[in-house]
This record gives sequence, structure tokens and C-alpha cells, in this order.
Amino acid sequence: MTHKHGGNIYEHKNAADFSANINFRGMPDSVRRAAMEAIDASIHYPEPGSKELRKILAKRENVSEDQVICGNGAAELMFLLALALRPKHAVLAQPCFFEYEQSLQSVDCRITNIWLKEGSGFELTEEFVSQIPSDADLVILGNPNNPTGQLISKEVIAAIRAHCRENGIYLVIDESFFDFLTEEDAARTTEAIGFEEETVFVIKSFTKMYAMPGLRVGYGICKNAALLEKMHLLMQPWNVSLPAQMAAKAAAGESEFAAKTAKMTAVNREWMTEKLKACGYTVFPSCTNYLLFWGPAGLTEYAEAHGYLIRDCSNFRGLEINKDAAGMDIRQEDSVCGKTGEIRQYYRICIRSQQENEGLLAVLAAFLKNQ
Amino acid sequence: MTHKHGGNIYEHKNAADFSANINFRGMPDSVRRAAMEAIDASIHYPEPGSKELRKILAKRENVSEDQVICGNGAAELMFLLALALRPKHAVLAQPCFFEYEQSLQSVDCRITNIWLKEGSGFELTEEFVSQIPSDADLVILGNPNNPTGQLISKEVIAAIRAHCRENGIYLVIDESFFDFLTEEDAARTTEAIGFEEETVFVIKSFTKMYAMPGLRVGYGICKNAALLEKMHLLMQPWNVSLPAQMAAKAAAGESEFAAKTAKMTAVNREWMTEKLKACGYTVFPSCTNYLLFWGPAGLTEYAEAHGYLIRDCSNFRGLEINKDAAGMDIRQEDSVCGKTGEIRQYYRICIRSQQENEGLLAVLAAFLKNQ
Repeated sequence: MTHKHGGNIYEHKNAADFSANINFRGMPDSVRRAAMEAIDASIHYPEPGSKELRKILAKRENVSEDQVICGNGAAELMFLLALALRPKHAVLAQPCFFEYEQSLQSVDCRITNIWLKEGSGFELTEEFVSQIPSDADLVILGNPNNPTGQLISKEVIAAIRAHCRENGIYLVIDESFFDFLTEEDAARTTEAIGFEEETVFVIKSFTKMYAMPGLRVGYGICKNAALLEKMHLLMQPWNVSLPAQMAAKAAAGESEFAAKTAKMTAVNREWMTEKLKACGYTVFPSCTNYLLFWGPAGLTEYAEAHGYLIRDCSNFRGLEINKDAAGMDIRQEDSVCGKTGEIRQYYRICIRSQQENEGLLAVLAAFLKNQ
Repeated sequence: MTHKHGGNIYEHKNAADFSANINFRGMPDSVRRAAMEAIDASIHYPEPGSKELRKILAKRENVSEDQVICGNGAAELMFLLALALRPKHAVLAQPCFFEYEQSLQSVDCRITNIWLKEGSGFELTEEFVSQIPSDADLVILGNPNNPTGQLISKEVIAAIRAHCRENGIYLVIDESFFDFLTEEDAARTTEAIGFEEETVFVIKSFTKMYAMPGLRVGYGICKNAALLEKMHLLMQPWNVSLPAQMAAKAAAGESEFAAKTAKMTAVNREWMTEKLKACGYTVFPSCTNYLLFWGPAGLTEYAEAHGYLIRDCSNFRGLEINKDAAGMDIRQEDSVCGKTGEIRQYYRICIRSQQENEGLLAVLAAFLKNQ
């Protein structure tokens, strides 16, 4: 009935979860305590419109309060934004997070998929700008992108931004994983929160960095207060639960925790990348807390049988298994997969603690040896 | 920016809250414990589509699992239903819960308001059926209704149901307060869950009975599995947080708690009704955990100054203050208000413990004496 995502520990009990991109360090104590205390307070409704939380986030992001909107996870904001904007023709850089497409479909928006090229590690280049159709009214990009882990360079962001501004195109930038960038990586790109355009909407999430996906809270930043007011009118006033509001307030004060996580993650990621390559997997460069790679089909099932959940990426557009039902190669032209006629598949794994990563690596290595 | 509701303890700190219709007995222990335990588990995503919770609810309601949908509070389900059905012309019995109208407006649906008559205690009568416009495609009713506290009799439910079935009109029945009915009152009406029509959608809530409005969870029951599947496609898969899912599973086992609450509430409500009448307020008959009454303007502010939050009902349609800006009487014809030219106002209070009710009553009585 629904699209298959990572992190479904309910169908796979007792497995170590590398399929969801959650901070391996877990919830900061302050966040956990705030959420616990919120349970007793939950005999009351949450604050309508998350007013106090929005104040705190506005201060954190250096914007005004009416430029912040809070959602029941970032995913809710995408649906609300589609509903408020009612775009006619949107552009996605594929592969990308499935909810972009799902939210656009909910308002019958036409979608043009621009394919990121595997040959260049799925990097989004300036060529993207020339591929935006002339009647497009919305572009949605992840920075860094999920599932590729790629960030968009300063230059490309600037070019896309200029093109969108000049052509009256709404630009949505999903920065849900931005806090996982090291300082060096962050310096290679531009955070969109400072942008003055009323047509730029930035999506932020606490889910991943503060390990609270079960609580559901995300936020959006936009200079167009009228658009945010429209979104508020399209949603119930109590869309963010009380535990989520309280936890997010606590998380907003945990920037040191985030910075430390980014550093630790980068170290573990480089280790995992090298080891996977050494095993024989093709690994794509990532600057966040997950890795995209490909290998033979059957790895998801093998890993699961050995107690590990990893993300089978074959339902991401552009990462489908390289044969259609008739046996034809349906990959993009420059794919390095499937050249031999083998069925190969894309996978995504979360970067976790060194010990956990070693455990997973042993399983992934054994799988290749058994081929 | 948003409509004003009851239960906003954030703007009125340290006040006793009679403005939200929450069970005065608080959260059952089992619910509280389940929500607490869910915090540590919230480093994982909630189960997509609330599958296990839906199984439990299906069993409780004696329907199949694919006939149940869970929402981020019942309010989310109303918005999703509007989005999935895209009605063109809906009918509301006013006054009623504001979110019905807000959800319809989100899809630009025309609304016909049929006015419940104050003279007959806002009872919904068979006359309602003859007032449904011939091109209506959706009727939304609360049973019992909020804010009037009135239930719809067996006969009237049957007449509306037959009319809707014969004319292909979707019928949404909001039973969020149904569990507060005593056995005798429940016998005067019909619970809609047993209805076989694929065009009937029933809304249920745990918020009120199990005192968990902060957690956000409600559910819908409908025999039209295709409609529910459409609603699922219009929402994110993780719309109900993990603490909410776990708390709801626990609440589903607390039917004894609910039955006892209904009995206690009825006793306290009858006491409060008599006392308010004796003071000089005009009180409308209610069969649930709140009372609608009217009295002089200024009571909300007076009560607040004395530490009590009550619900000013002047933003419910049909309960507006009886003068417009030009001083004209804008009430419905049979209103018993405003005949003397005074400005009078409608208020709603929750029924709480005897001790709490006595405290509020003293304030309400003092206000009338000071007039």
C-alpha cells in the first residue's frame, strides 16, 4: 500500500538498523528528558502553531518567527507546501527522497526528472540549470542529497538560485542532513537559510541528527510569510505533538553535540568507504551519515538473515534494478552497472559506531566472497 | 493567524483548564507508561502506516484492518479526507467543530450551513434531511456534537443515512465524544461503525477519553478500502508518532476506564447543569463531558482573572455575539438571546471533578451577582 522506506524495524525485529539515516550516538540526554517530561504534560493540547518552538528556532536560524513553520516531521511540510503552492510543473534531480514526488502527486503536479549521472558520482552540476524546462514553477533539491550523500557546490547553488529567481521558480532546498557536514564540506556549499528570495523554502529536520524520528518534528524556513500563513491555514493547529515540541526545544540547544557528531561520522564514513571498496563494492562519495554503493543482487536478504537491516535502493528512481520485466537494460546510458548482463543493485547504509560498522562490514564482505 | 480554540494553556499559564474537553480523570496509568517507554524507542521511526495499531483497533471495532486509518489526531484525518474526496458541496450542521469547515476550505469546497435551532436546544431533527441541497456530495456531523453536547436520535440518524445512501452523498460522522455517553444515552442513538455503506466515514478519537491530546492520535473507520488507500497515499507514512501509537495501543485496552468515566461524568454534569441554571445561566442539554450555556459578555475574562480557562464560543458559527459591528442583531430568528438588546455570549465548559467544578461554579456564580 505504501512506498517502502528504510527504518522499518517493525517488520524486521531484533535486526541492527543501518537502513535509516539516524545519528548512531542516539538522542542527547536533554532531548530524551524533555520528551519524557512532556508525557505527563500531554493531558493538555500542544501549543497551537508551535509558537514557542518557532521563536527558539527563529533565534537559532537568525530569522524572524513568522518565517518559521513546524511540521509533524519534515515530510508533512512537503505535503503542505505542495498544497499551498499548487505547482503545475516541478523538477526533481533523481535519485532523491521519495516524499518529494509523493507530495507533488498529491496535487497532480507534472514532474520532470533530471537524471544525476552515476558516472560522475551523482554530482549535481551546472548542466542541471539548462535542463530545467521553461514552464517549470518549482525545483526541489536535497543538499546534501538523499540517497547519494552528495552536496551541491557553492557555484551550482548560485547558478540554480539565479535561474530560479530570474524565472519566478520556487526553489525548495531540503537541508535535513546539512548538520552532518564537516566544516570543510560545509564551506564547499551554501546554506540556503540566508537567501532573501521569497521563493526559496528551506526544509530542516531534527529527526536525523538528534535521533528522534519516532517523535516527528521538522521545520521550514521561508521569507514569504504569506506562504507560511497559507500553509498554517491548511493544517490543524496541533500538528506537532507535545513530546516533539519539547524535544525539539531541547535539541535546538545541542549544537555542540551536532558538531561532534559530524566529526565522528566523517571518520567512520571514510573508514567504511575504504573497506567497502577494498571488498569490491562500488561506493559513491558521500559527505553525510550514509553511503550509497552497489553490488550483486540479494545483499538485502543476506544482510537481514545475518541480523542487519540495510536499505535496498531499487525503489529510488534512477536506481532501479537494471533489468525490466522483459530483461531490457533500463538504466541511464552512462551507468556503469549491468554492463556484463548481471543484475546488480544499489544499497544505502547508515554510518554508525566503529564497532557496529565492523560487524556490518564482515557480513557485506562475506556476501561478496560467496558470490 | 489561526482560529482560536480551547485548551491553549500556553497563553494562560497556571489556569485551571475547563476550555478543552478532556477527561478530568487524566491519562490511564497503562497509557502513560506506554508513552514513556516509547521515548527511548523513538530513536527509530514509528511503524509506517501504524499497521499494528490498526490491527488492534480493527479488532476493537470489529472491522477489518484495511478499514481503519490512523491520523495525527482526528483533525489530520479530516484534512486528508477532504483531499481524497475533493467534495464540491458540503453540508454542516452549525454550530459545530471548526476543523470541519477548515478542512473543506482547504479543497475549495462550497459549504451550506444548516442552522441548529437554539429554541430546541440545538437538537438535530429530521427537518435537517429536507434542508440538504440536491447537489450536496458530503455531510459532516458530530455525534455527539461539539460544542452543543447533543446526540442525534436513532430515527434521525436513520433518515439522514437513507437520504445520503439514496443520493450518493458521503456521510462523515465524528464520534470523538461517543465514549462519554452513558449506556442509556448510547441506546438513544446509533454508532455508525456498523454501517455497511462505502460512503460512510466514522471519526474516532482517543484524545478526549484517554486525556492524551498532547500525543496526537485519532482514527477513522470506513468500509471503502480504496478511499483509505487513497488517503494513505496523500500522507507521509510516519504521520503518527511512536509515543502516540504506543499510547493508543494501551488505550484500546481501557474500555472499563471509559465506561466508569462516562458514569462519573454524567453525575457531575447533572450537578453542574442544575447549579448553573440555579445561578441564572441558560444551559443547554448535553450528554457528554462539556456544557454549552449563555450568559452576559465578559465571563471569559472574568473567569481567567480568577484562574479558570473557559471556552468563549463566539467564534463558532451560529454562536457569534449577537450584535454585529453596526449594532444589528445577527442571530438566527428563533434565538432567545439578545431580545433585550443586551450583549450575551455563549460559553462552553468541560465537566471535571466535583471539587474542580465547585471551584469554577463559585466564580461563575459571583460573575452573575456582580452584573
